[in-house]
Amino acid sequence: MARVVTFGEIMMRLAPPGYQRFIQAHSFDVSYAGGEANVAASLAQFGHEASFVTVLPDNALADAAIAFLRYYGVDTSRVVRSNVGRLGVYFLETGAAQRASRVIYDRAGSTVAITPPDVYDWSQILNGYDHFHTTGITPALGENCARATLDALRTAKQLGLTTSFDLNYRAKLWSTATARRTVEPMLEFVDTVIGNEEDAKNVLGIEAAGTDVQRGEVQHAAYEEVARKIAERHHVANVAITLRESESASVNHWSACLLSEGQFLLSERYTIQVVDRVGAGDSFCGGLLAARLDGMTPADALEFAVAASCLKHSIPGDFNKVSKDEVLRLCSGDASGRVVR
Amino acid sequence: MARVVTFGEIMMRLAPPGYQRFIQAHSFDVSYAGGEANVAASLAQFGHEASFVTVLPDNALADAAIAFLRYYGVDTSRVVRSNVGRLGVYFLETGAAQRASRVIYDRAGSTVAITPPDVYDWSQILNGYDHFHTTGITPALGENCARATLDALRTAKQLGLTTSFDLNYRAKLWSTATARRTVEPMLEFVDTVIGNEEDAKNVLGIEAAGTDVQRGEVQHAAYEEVARKIAERHHVANVAITLRESESASVNHWSACLLSEGQFLLSERYTIQVVDRVGAGDSFCGGLLAARLDGMTPADALEFAVAASCLKHSIPGDFNKVSKDEVLRLCSGDASGRVVR
Amino acid sequence: MARVVTFGEIMMRLAPPGYQRFIQAHSFDVSYAGGEANVAASLAQFGHEASFVTVLPDNALADAAIAFLRYYGVDTSRVVRSNVGRLGVYFLETGAAQRASRVIYDRAGSTVAITPPDVYDWSQILNGYDHFHTTGITPALGENCARATLDALRTAKQLGLTTSFDLNYRAKLWSTATARRTVEPMLEFVDTVIGNEEDAKNVLGIEAAGTDVQRGEVQHAAYEEVARKIAERHHVANVAITLRESESASVNHWSACLLSEGQFLLSERYTIQVVDRVGAGDSFCGGLLAARLDGMTPADALEFAVAASCLKHSIPGDFNKVSKDEVLRLCSGDASGRVVR
Amino acid sequence: MARVVTFGEIMMRLAPPGYQRFIQAHSFDVSYAGGEANVAASLAQFGHEASFVTVLPDNALADAAIAFLRYYGVDTSRVVRSNVGRLGVYFLETGAAQRASRVIYDRAGSTVAITPPDVYDWSQILNGYDHFHTTGITPALGENCARATLDALRTAKQLGLTTSFDLNYRAKLWSTATARRTVEPMLEFVDTVIGNEEDAKNVLGIEAAGTDVQRGEVQHAAYEEVARKIAERHHVANVAITLRESESASVNHWSACLLSEGQFLLSERYTIQVVDRVGAGDSFCGGLLAARLDGMTPADALEFAVAASCLKHSIPGDFNKVSKDEVLRLCSGDASGRVVR
Amino acid sequence: MARVVTFGEIMMRLAPPGYQRFIQAHSFDVSYAGGEANVAASLAQFGHEASFVTVLPDNALADAAIAFLRYYGVDTSRVVRSNVGRLGVYFLETGAAQRASRVIYDRAGSTVAITPPDVYDWSQILNGYDHFHTTGITPALGENCARATLDALRTAKQLGLTTSFDLNYRAKLWSTATARRTVEPMLEFVDTVIGNEEDAKNVLGIEAAGTDVQRGEVQHAAYEEVARKIAERHHVANVAITLRESESASVNHWSACLLSEGQFLLSERYTIQVVDRVGAGDSFCGGLLAARLDGMTPADALEFAVAASCLKHSIPGDFNKVSKDEVLRLCSGDASGRVVR
Amino acid sequence: MARVVTFGEIMMRLAPPGYQRFIQAHSFDVSYAGGEANVAASLAQFGHEASFVTVLPDNALADAAIAFLRYYGVDTSRVVRSNVGRLGVYFLETGAAQRASRVIYDRAGSTVAITPPDVYDWSQILNGYDHFHTTGITPALGENCARATLDALRTAKQLGLTTSFDLNYRAKLWSTATARRTVEPMLEFVDTVIGNEEDAKNVLGIEAAGTDVQRGEVQHAAYEEVARKIAERHHVANVAITLRESESASVNHWSACLLSEGQFLLSERYTIQVVDRVGAGDSFCGGLLAARLDGMTPADALEFAVAASCLKHSIPGDFNKVSKDEVLRLCSGDASGRVVR
Repeated sequence: MARVVTFGEIMMRLAPPGYQRFIQAHSFDVSYAGGEANVAASLAQFGHEASFVTVLPDNALADAAIAFLRYYGVDTSRVVRSNVGRLGVYFLETGAAQRASRVIYDRAGSTVAITPPDVYDWSQILNGYDHFHTTGITPALGENCARATLDALRTAKQLGLTTSFDLNYRAKLWSTATARRTVEPMLEFVDTVIGNEEDAKNVLGIEAAGTDVQRGEVQHAAYEEVARKIAERHHVANVAITLRESESASVNHWSACLLSEGQFLLSERYTIQVVDRVGAGDSFCGGLLAARLDGMTPADALEFAVAASCLKHSIPGDFNKVSKDEVLRLCSGDASGRVVR
Repeated sequence: MARVVTFGEIMMRLAPPGYQRFIQAHSFDVSYAGGEANVAASLAQFGHEASFVTVLPDNALADAAIAFLRYYGVDTSRVVRSNVGRLGVYFLETGAAQRASRVIYDRAGSTVAITPPDVYDWSQILNGYDHFHTTGITPALGENCARATLDALRTAKQLGLTTSFDLNYRAKLWSTATARRTVEPMLEFVDTVIGNEEDAKNVLGIEAAGTDVQRGEVQHAAYEEVARKIAERHHVANVAITLRESESASVNHWSACLLSEGQFLLSERYTIQVVDRVGAGDSFCGGLLAARLDGMTPADALEFAVAASCLKHSIPGDFNKVSKDEVLRLCSGDASGRVVR
Repeated sequence: MARVVTFGEIMMRLAPPGYQRFIQAHSFDVSYAGGEANVAASLAQFGHEASFVTVLPDNALADAAIAFLRYYGVDTSRVVRSNVGRLGVYFLETGAAQRASRVIYDRAGSTVAITPPDVYDWSQILNGYDHFHTTGITPALGENCARATLDALRTAKQLGLTTSFDLNYRAKLWSTATARRTVEPMLEFVDTVIGNEEDAKNVLGIEAAGTDVQRGEVQHAAYEEVARKIAERHHVANVAITLRESESASVNHWSACLLSEGQFLLSERYTIQVVDRVGAGDSFCGGLLAARLDGMTPADALEFAVAASCLKHSIPGDFNKVSKDEVLRLCSGDASGRVVR
Repeated sequence: MARVVTFGEIMMRLAPPGYQRFIQAHSFDVSYAGGEANVAASLAQFGHEASFVTVLPDNALADAAIAFLRYYGVDTSRVVRSNVGRLGVYFLETGAAQRASRVIYDRAGSTVAITPPDVYDWSQILNGYDHFHTTGITPALGENCARATLDALRTAKQLGLTTSFDLNYRAKLWSTATARRTVEPMLEFVDTVIGNEEDAKNVLGIEAAGTDVQRGEVQHAAYEEVARKIAERHHVANVAITLRESESASVNHWSACLLSEGQFLLSERYTIQVVDRVGAGDSFCGGLLAARLDGMTPADALEFAVAASCLKHSIPGDFNKVSKDEVLRLCSGDASGRVVR
Repeated sequence: MARVVTFGEIMMRLAPPGYQRFIQAHSFDVSYAGGEANVAASLAQFGHEASFVTVLPDNALADAAIAFLRYYGVDTSRVVRSNVGRLGVYFLETGAAQRASRVIYDRAGSTVAITPPDVYDWSQILNGYDHFHTTGITPALGENCARATLDALRTAKQLGLTTSFDLNYRAKLWSTATARRTVEPMLEFVDTVIGNEEDAKNVLGIEAAGTDVQRGEVQHAAYEEVARKIAERHHVANVAITLRESESASVNHWSACLLSEGQFLLSERYTIQVVDRVGAGDSFCGGLLAARLDGMTPADALEFAVAASCLKHSIPGDFNKVSKDEVLRLCSGDASGRVVR
Repeated sequence: MARVVTFGEIMMRLAPPGYQRFIQAHSFDVSYAGGEANVAASLAQFGHEASFVTVLPDNALADAAIAFLRYYGVDTSRVVRSNVGRLGVYFLETGAAQRASRVIYDRAGSTVAITPPDVYDWSQILNGYDHFHTTGITPALGENCARATLDALRTAKQLGLTTSFDLNYRAKLWSTATARRTVEPMLEFVDTVIGNEEDAKNVLGIEAAGTDVQRGEVQHAAYEEVARKIAERHHVANVAITLRESESASVNHWSACLLSEGQFLLSERYTIQVVDRVGAGDSFCGGLLAARLDGMTPADALEFAVAASCLKHSIPGDFNKVSKDEVLRLCSGDASGRVVR
């Protein structure tokens, strides 16, 4: 068991039931989610100690967000409470067939975004931990969070933790130019960079040839080059990229590649009848980190991460609620979905 | 923006949740629907002014039906209220896999069906409008509605409106013989005839060779001939036919053809994981009319209509709740259903 | 119409809604189910008189189980009530994509399991009936039920009833060794043995070559040999085996074979988008028995049973709620799932 | 255990959840109900054999109505199916505080209403039964049902059954004049007449002095006179009248009186926090008949009936789902509602 | 029928079902509400033409808010859309017994609050209308809205409209000092001031003697003095004050007083089993305005308003969904809540 | 903040929604509860560190029970997992009006009941804690738990912890004779005994004169004598007794008395509109312990405990989800339930 800290924003997730559009909704399913919280939950499910760091307002909704994290085994003792700002919200409409899922973010003015970086004492927070993880969403929340992210990464490396960073580009939060200018200096302190088919291009300006994501087409070969460029330019030991091929909102193909210490690996490719794909990238991160921290080889860890995130697509909510055993069974080839009695 | 009137019956739609059979249902999802109301809702969603004409009883259930139309932007100021009759009801059981969806109509004695045709002053109702639309369901409701339909179409042409008529054969309401005898004279006043794979045969006696609808097979070529025959015999400028190929209740292929001023066009063909296919034909009508009234070419309008109705299959309820932008994005090739953030 | 008795355990079935995992569930959908009760319900839906025999505790939950059976037309007048033990419960988590459905049984100490076999007066219970059916689950519940099962089968044959036995191996209830030792002597009194791809191996030690069930692969040919071996070794007139090929929890292929009086038959193979596959094997039994009791040929009965159980996959709950007409329509080739209005 | 037949209409009951108004409803709770079916269900719950007679259409909705009756133990083997007409529907909006519950009937053209009286062979139907019960709703459904009701009552008396008739005036179905003209001749064949505070006035023109039902005030004394007048004029052995005093839709006082063989009895008066009061009158009938058929004295039977119907107010749905034991406990004074563990 | 404009903010209302606390909620019921929108909805239900003015963001959630207004008959053609800001949200936890309902506002940065006042052309907006209504919440949203409110009131008077202003003090939005400084100058343009037991003190510094609102005690007499002081100091023709006496969250007493042209009137006092009391004050305003605009006397209008808002307490959601007929029936003394069939 | 351990059984709680009876339920609301777990949850809500000790099976349902405890802030690190036994279940039907709530226990064979007492190392478990709490339910689970309870209490006193014991008699689990024989020796190690109106009689044979609990009558005076007898006979420093007067399942009066170091205190008496009264006694314990551990005087602690448990009646589920602030506000007299904005 390793000890991991993740840092970022957790939001209330509000989703109309089933395949209803926003305009039809008379109720919303409530859960709580965020890129870094999702990773912490995955790590906790896989048996690691995961602590999530954020700042939340001092009200009953934030209490529920914290309780939700605790429910899934995440340590919340380092969450800071504040009497300014609000709990961010995101609204999710689940797509089907040719209709895409839609997310409306309502996160401006969230407590974590408006809290100055000096609220975090990273030396103390990270003390005794093995790994630190965050994503490109956190610095995208504004100056406060960008500064805190850099502080955290730098401190983590000083304290000897390994680190990971999921590029996670969000066009609603910042431009590609600002993203690149902000993220690139952070990579100096990062051991593992993770991204999806589009992140490398959006955040780092490194494009994969021959891929038309809108049409659901992915050229796997091209991603070796992308991974190698990231590794070389930014002196990063590991680069992992998830590769989603969308036939439709209902049927996806899912695989990933990993460049680890110079070795390029391409994973199994799963065809998935999608239940809920939001959080799948985070479940890949969570799986990859869990597997590496458990001492798996890069090849095994990649398969573990892809299988874990494949299973996430079948589960409602951002958090991946699967056990290590379930992932290993899928890795070993049991993808038949037969009833387990 | 064009101004359109549609005329017909709106019913309460009662459906067991999910894939429950009627016998299992302990609750019904409630909405309101009807062929012509569905088209009005589509037109309103696409930015046109759509007014729905019907007669409804003077009770709280009909109040809800009217509110529901207003909710989706349909003008209801021309709806007539009456103290006789009832609000029609239809019960829908949603199928899956090899099990078909089932509809039980409970619409006998509905207010619109028993109200004499002289309740409508079509010259006044249609005054100032650009287009009039109705379907074969309305005259099938009985003598009163058949007479009103003919009056409306004749008046529309006299006032210079364009008109459209969806054949929409309903075996529970009338025989093919009565349908043919009633509808054929109406076509004199119709500019655009719309139908599905079976309507031309059922209502007009014009059959497509080599098609076995029950087995989900459709011979696209054969439909050019069907369309041309309709156009010729009935001097109709445009004939559009939707072509559904059902692998199962869960997976359908969906396309359409359009004969417009002699030119025959065959659309893109979509493979669809079906959420709710009831109202898909109406959403095709709505898309076609919206596109044509917006000035699109026949080819673009056909693609718009097929894309609009493709998306309808992913949405619960008869009404198509999609925007023009969403349809155009699908027309432009983005069928991947990737999350829109 | 034939008169049939089935004997076994009925449990409360508790399932999180939709695709929720157990850990996410804030409510459970409640129904009642059990292998032999499921068969009785199928027979009742197909117009036969089906009586279900069991022992239930004397409380409101068991009252509901009995009412549930009555709801679906099963005669419950032979159910015995007792003031010891409890109503068994099974928890079902519905899988999707690569994630399997899971069942947690909580049936230890159920009233039927702890009630001594002398509570049943089989001569009186079976008097006037045509057929007796039970499954391998019943003797697996322990000594009491094993003894009662043997008594029932022997008495049934003495009274001239035909009999059927679904092998239905449950690893949680007993070992393969105990199963074999217990079930083999029962087959002396059985006319029709039914099983799935794995039961013959688990219960009777007869394996099909070249099949890897975990990978969803089935060698149809190999099952002829399995069937013939069962028939020969145990002098059974009919052997039916269902053949599930699982692409994933969401997509299955489904067929079956029947060896009847020496003639080997292989059925139509359906590709199914799965809604709820629990109880599918029982619905096959129910279909096969109903068809044979109605006098259909073995070939027609096999097709009826496969079609009936194909439809079951589209229906929530263990019980198969389809009519004879619906099954016959699918048998006749209408698998398109088009709306029935 | 006695054997009872009740005759009338069963409808689908559709009610918005909780205290929603019709205009707010996006779903309806579904059950099945009707005055005479409600009485049959009460009798079955109290351990009597109760058979409900009606005519229903041959569709899946009526199948569900029949299954619902069976669920609550009512014998449905005498229900006639027909291919004309429809299943009646009633919509119920549950009131609270000063807002009244509302019922919208949609029962015109129901199968039972349009089926000629000769479909019932009362001599055969009633053969072997002890008691026949119907209500003023049945003849109010029209000529067919009025004739059938008279036939049934006359035959019942000829065959030596005891009979009961709940006046149950429905202003939406007929005028007080027609009601009186139709019902009075039926009372010749009735042993027990039941009514509420207003029925005697509406159906028989016999008014209680000093009562303002709208204000929730009831003069108990005045009802002795009403009961005696009914008994005398119509030579009826027993007259029972329920006395509801409505403080509001949420709080009611509930009692009843019984004139039996000249003796006038006034019951305990309960103050009730109302959950669902629809069907309470029927549950009083059911309780009174059950108690009398069980051989209780008039005084005990009156208390049993009032307690049974008091409990009904706490249960959602028309049917009274309480056991004899529960009623007797309330009769014995345990009205505290303490948890039963 | 009169024509009325109301101006303010509409928010998404998110409420856990039933009596769940926030921490328990796994879903929220969704509706849309706001003081001034609530009044518009009341007016529309009572048959007046009511137009609601606000500024909303250009997204699907605001589309739903607008559709919701239309559903209840409110004219939304004057709603301005903007690409800045967000839709305000309020979270409501419904109390019971001694536990109070709780509201968490999440409305900072809403589009209407951050939009400059010059976006409204009041001369054009109010042209042709009879009455203008707003509340103390609107200016409390900040400088922009305070300025717009003053502009609107001044313009309304210039154009000859009557005006009303509900004090509606919100401690979370501003201090009593700021409220007083802002609102007092507005009263110059107000004909009718409305408030609850506490508003006069909080907004205008005018206190009622002998009242302890926290203990649910209200001295009716004291409010005559409060009303007269408001009328005199601010030259207001009408002052109405609602008087809530809370026994608990579940049981309230509800009445109101009205000072109209010097005449002081005290209404009927209702004891209410509360379903949802949020919006009750607005429903009083809506009732009072509707009644006065319909030409009722002050005394009748006061009773109408109190009865209308009494009924609101029985209805889920802020909007009052009652008809004029229902209110008049309660005014006439029918408070028994008997079933209306 | 104090540190508290509680010990006992946690069960799955399954309850039909609203006021449905078991026979009507098509779904159950799921939560997890048990007397000692409920107390731990109360203590955690009030800011104390509360650890719950039990033994649970190693399956997904028990995982959910543990997550549920964590959600409400209870420390579960001392929960033991085992591969024998099952998670106990209790079914709850919520009563209303004169109909009592009903509980069906299905807890036989639960893991905690069948696990030998040596699985607990109490010296280690209790090390560092301030207080130990358990109830009469735990020893009632059988020999194993009775022995473990005695061990725990003895060890607690040896280690210098204070202790409390809620008598909590459960007639379904043991006789009064066995209860008395088992519990009396335990009281040697108990500082605070808690019970309800009936427990002292059932467990200790000490009866209150003049009380008829079934009729909802309680003689407050008599309880001073009961408390004094308990204190004297068993040398207990504090005795607290809750006093419920049930008008009906919907309306209760609630108070309590406390004998502390010889001083007898009687609390405020609340009239409560009941939402869910299950767990109220535990919430009284939790409140009393929290208050005493916070250093409140006996009188203040008694009022705190009664107010806390008064509020519990308004909250669905066994756990009391109220904050210290909310309780103190009620203690200070704000029982009006006015909206908190």
